[in-house]
Amino acid sequence: MRIYNSMSARSGGRDARQKMRSDRSVTFMPPMDRGLPYMDLLSADELLRLHDNSMQVLEEIGIEFRDDEAIALWRSAGAHVTDQRVRIGRNLLMDLVAKAPEYITIHARNPSRTVTIGGRKTIFTPAYGSPNVLDLEGKRRNATVADFVNFAKLAYQAPAMHMTGGVLCEPMDIAVPKRHLHMNYSLIRYSDKPFMGAVTSRERAEDTVAMAKIVFGDEFVHNNTVMVSIANCNSPLVWDSTMLDAVKVYAASNQAILFTPFVLAGASTPASTLAAVAQLNAEALAGIAFAQLVRPGAPAIYGQWLATVSMKSGAPMAGTPEICHMNMLVGQLARHYKLPWRCSGMCTSSKLVDAQAGYEAARNMYGVLIAGANFVLSSTGYLEAALTQSYSKFMLDAEQMVMFHKLGQGLVKSELDETLDAIRQSEPGSHYLGTEHTLKNFEKAFFVPDLMNHDSYEQWNFAGAKDADTRGRDAAERALREYQVPPLDEAIDEELLDFMKRRELAIGEAVL
Amino acid sequence: MRIYNSMSARSGGRDARQKMRSDRSVTFMPPMDRGLPYMDLLSADELLRLHDNSMQVLEEIGIEFRDDEAIALWRSAGAHVTDQRVRIGRNLLMDLVAKAPEYITIHARNPSRTVTIGGRKTIFTPAYGSPNVLDLEGKRRNATVADFVNFAKLAYQAPAMHMTGGVLCEPMDIAVPKRHLHMNYSLIRYSDKPFMGAVTSRERAEDTVAMAKIVFGDEFVHNNTVMVSIANCNSPLVWDSTMLDAVKVYAASNQAILFTPFVLAGASTPASTLAAVAQLNAEALAGIAFAQLVRPGAPAIYGQWLATVSMKSGAPMAGTPEICHMNMLVGQLARHYKLPWRCSGMCTSSKLVDAQAGYEAARNMYGVLIAGANFVLSSTGYLEAALTQSYSKFMLDAEQMVMFHKLGQGLVKSELDETLDAIRQSEPGSHYLGTEHTLKNFEKAFFVPDLMNHDSYEQWNFAGAKDADTRGRDAAERALREYQVPPLDEAIDEELLDFMKRRELAIGEAVL
Repeated sequence: MRIYNSMSARSGGRDARQKMRSDRSVTFMPPMDRGLPYMDLLSADELLRLHDNSMQVLEEIGIEFRDDEAIALWRSAGAHVTDQRVRIGRNLLMDLVAKAPEYITIHARNPSRTVTIGGRKTIFTPAYGSPNVLDLEGKRRNATVADFVNFAKLAYQAPAMHMTGGVLCEPMDIAVPKRHLHMNYSLIRYSDKPFMGAVTSRERAEDTVAMAKIVFGDEFVHNNTVMVSIANCNSPLVWDSTMLDAVKVYAASNQAILFTPFVLAGASTPASTLAAVAQLNAEALAGIAFAQLVRPGAPAIYGQWLATVSMKSGAPMAGTPEICHMNMLVGQLARHYKLPWRCSGMCTSSKLVDAQAGYEAARNMYGVLIAGANFVLSSTGYLEAALTQSYSKFMLDAEQMVMFHKLGQGLVKSELDETLDAIRQSEPGSHYLGTEHTLKNFEKAFFVPDLMNHDSYEQWNFAGAKDADTRGRDAAERALREYQVPPLDEAIDEELLDFMKRRELAIGEAVL
Repeated sequence: MRIYNSMSARSGGRDARQKMRSDRSVTFMPPMDRGLPYMDLLSADELLRLHDNSMQVLEEIGIEFRDDEAIALWRSAGAHVTDQRVRIGRNLLMDLVAKAPEYITIHARNPSRTVTIGGRKTIFTPAYGSPNVLDLEGKRRNATVADFVNFAKLAYQAPAMHMTGGVLCEPMDIAVPKRHLHMNYSLIRYSDKPFMGAVTSRERAEDTVAMAKIVFGDEFVHNNTVMVSIANCNSPLVWDSTMLDAVKVYAASNQAILFTPFVLAGASTPASTLAAVAQLNAEALAGIAFAQLVRPGAPAIYGQWLATVSMKSGAPMAGTPEICHMNMLVGQLARHYKLPWRCSGMCTSSKLVDAQAGYEAARNMYGVLIAGANFVLSSTGYLEAALTQSYSKFMLDAEQMVMFHKLGQGLVKSELDETLDAIRQSEPGSHYLGTEHTLKNFEKAFFVPDLMNHDSYEQWNFAGAKDADTRGRDAAERALREYQVPPLDEAIDEELLDFMKRRELAIGEAVL
């Protein structure tokens, strides 16, 4: 696959590569281990009423599974089935949901990048699915596979990105039927963190599992989880055959699925935070239960993409108060069911990396952190309601996520033991700049972001008066220049490229 | 005072003014009534240890009151005094602190703008003290009294600003000795919300009380609270005579004071979140206790201005994880002492209204909301660590604060009663756009911000591709154009102007 030759730092042979690897190590933060308390909006009674509402929805209205195999599975499990409508009794539903694991370990090809989610453990992942990029010159254009590779390289280098991501952007220069092969390869080749799989057809999911098996071995993939994929629910209350096909492939292979009702509150749900959550809860639980019919114990992540809708344009919004309330409600429910759960983080409707992008992304993500999500998608780069991936915002967001990580970890309570001694090292009216305690603790005590500018106006002006957008683009350029490809066994690399060649040929013939 | 003639919409005589008033009413949101739970970082035992650390600081190291009258008051109250160093036993301290009220009602000259803080009630107030503005053309320059009047007009119109503010910016075109007179007048004249008083000397505080008495009457001011003023502590552990002079004037008049340790964590406190909070707790409590020596029951607000410091430049930062942790700790302490407490909100180090400004302001304010502050200063316009007040950011922030208000109010739990009926109004695979429940509830269910743009890229581009900064400036221009001065009794207005004239004359003579 010639297109990848120029994209990695592979020229110079094995020795040169070995040397480069040892020259520079990439910082990596483990999954966030939440030290903040949870913030439950509902009393235990109110939570049970909300749960009961979801149960009644599934028992009385039911939910559609638009797929014959899925219908057959539900029928034999004892659900009440009429055509594609499945009505699920709460006992059956909750018995199935109880089979889903509370914690999921997602293995990376570099074992030191393997992560576990669930309970108080949280991971962050880049934005997903945008057809456009805001490029290194700040120009909006169609995304390409070269952009995709670039974002994989940036995700690899971002300390608080725990996965490389999935559809980092849509490589519009590669035909859809073979696009997933190139995305999978790039995610595997240019980073060594866990990745996300293709979900747009059964065959593409199967290709993804096959490529994972080349990297990890057949048996390992069958018995462990090495990737996470998204299955969107067509809210209200429909799981369609495309998504269910992917779910069947992944669940059978023990690969994790994000069961994601797609909430445009007021359009695909009622105009009420509590009713919207009651509905999405029914949808997510039905999806998770279905995965257990395919393979009991299949790793399933409760989750949602969630926006309120502008009355003016019908467009999704980010960071609004109601989104935050809904995320908190979902978190409380997921904890009640002992399921790991997913949210979207640094979301914005802005077309630019401007103040709106900053306000909305920070508000949205802060809400997600408080709500306690275990899997945060769209943690970097997201603009324009996911239609654009931005190089600049990727870098700015990546640094923000380092701060959210530290925020979520909570206090270092052992500081209490040293408090008085620390204060005794100065005098009223003096300062602490040179004290022994300060010299020992400053660096670890307070995080100093690089891309936020704290200089005086004069210093900043003298240095070029760069806004945050410009600094973000500069940082992306620098990171791409400094990138060094992580090692991958050459036999595996050859086998992956070989697989892609064969599949492209077969797909090409099928398309003709 | 001729300079104010062109600044208010007073031309056209009484009839024209009456008409304008009735044409347009300004929306006003009452104090936020917190519906979110609190997030306590410390266990009850850990909180007592932190409290105990603060008590030990005051008992062992003590705190300086650099003012003879203050020293005399402490001596006669039974504190251990050596020169200016006051060591205060915990029983004395806590007896005094217990005299400070749990709730404070701040009266406005328009009674419908009167607010109460404390417990779950929170108010928002604009930024304070910047010598520069980023003006309507986006240019940074010295602030003037015309800017000050403009910001008073914007604060008056902002629905979620509960006070007009204090030093909205420094009117650099008016000499310092008489500047406070013009600020007080503008705050009273161009808005009818509560305001903040001058604190830079005893005389200026006395002038402020005198002007309030013209508006409210002597006895009312003596027995009620009509303003709030800031007293900064010179951390570590010094209350200086300028601030104490103002405190004595205001406390004697029953006017509220924000006792504000000025925390540059790592410089004016130890490099430890818990030690920094232990110190600021000692400082704030000592200030509040002192106010009770002046007048038992004097309204006192526990609070701080709080930043971590960049190692690179020594400059203060905003929105960092540690700032949020410290605010949460302070909130938990203030609730323990049953004191209303203060924080700063939309803070940023950015020189521009760019993505940094958005990220930092939103992160900082979200932390303040979660922490549960009752009085949020710097809710609008703040740039460059308070050195610049921005027209554009004032408008953007003001809208963000409406969203924070709604976020903090929490859920409308009665929605639980209608949840099932709402979901029954649609079908799987359909939508909710036209349902009876949606039509009835959409507008009140979801907030739609005006200044955040949710249009498609094409719509946005067609409409001029304006970034958030430009939209904010446009909004400020529009608001100033549409501003209508709230009614003020003409006799009071004349008396205020008369007072200013007399005081200016006296000050002028004193200066010569």
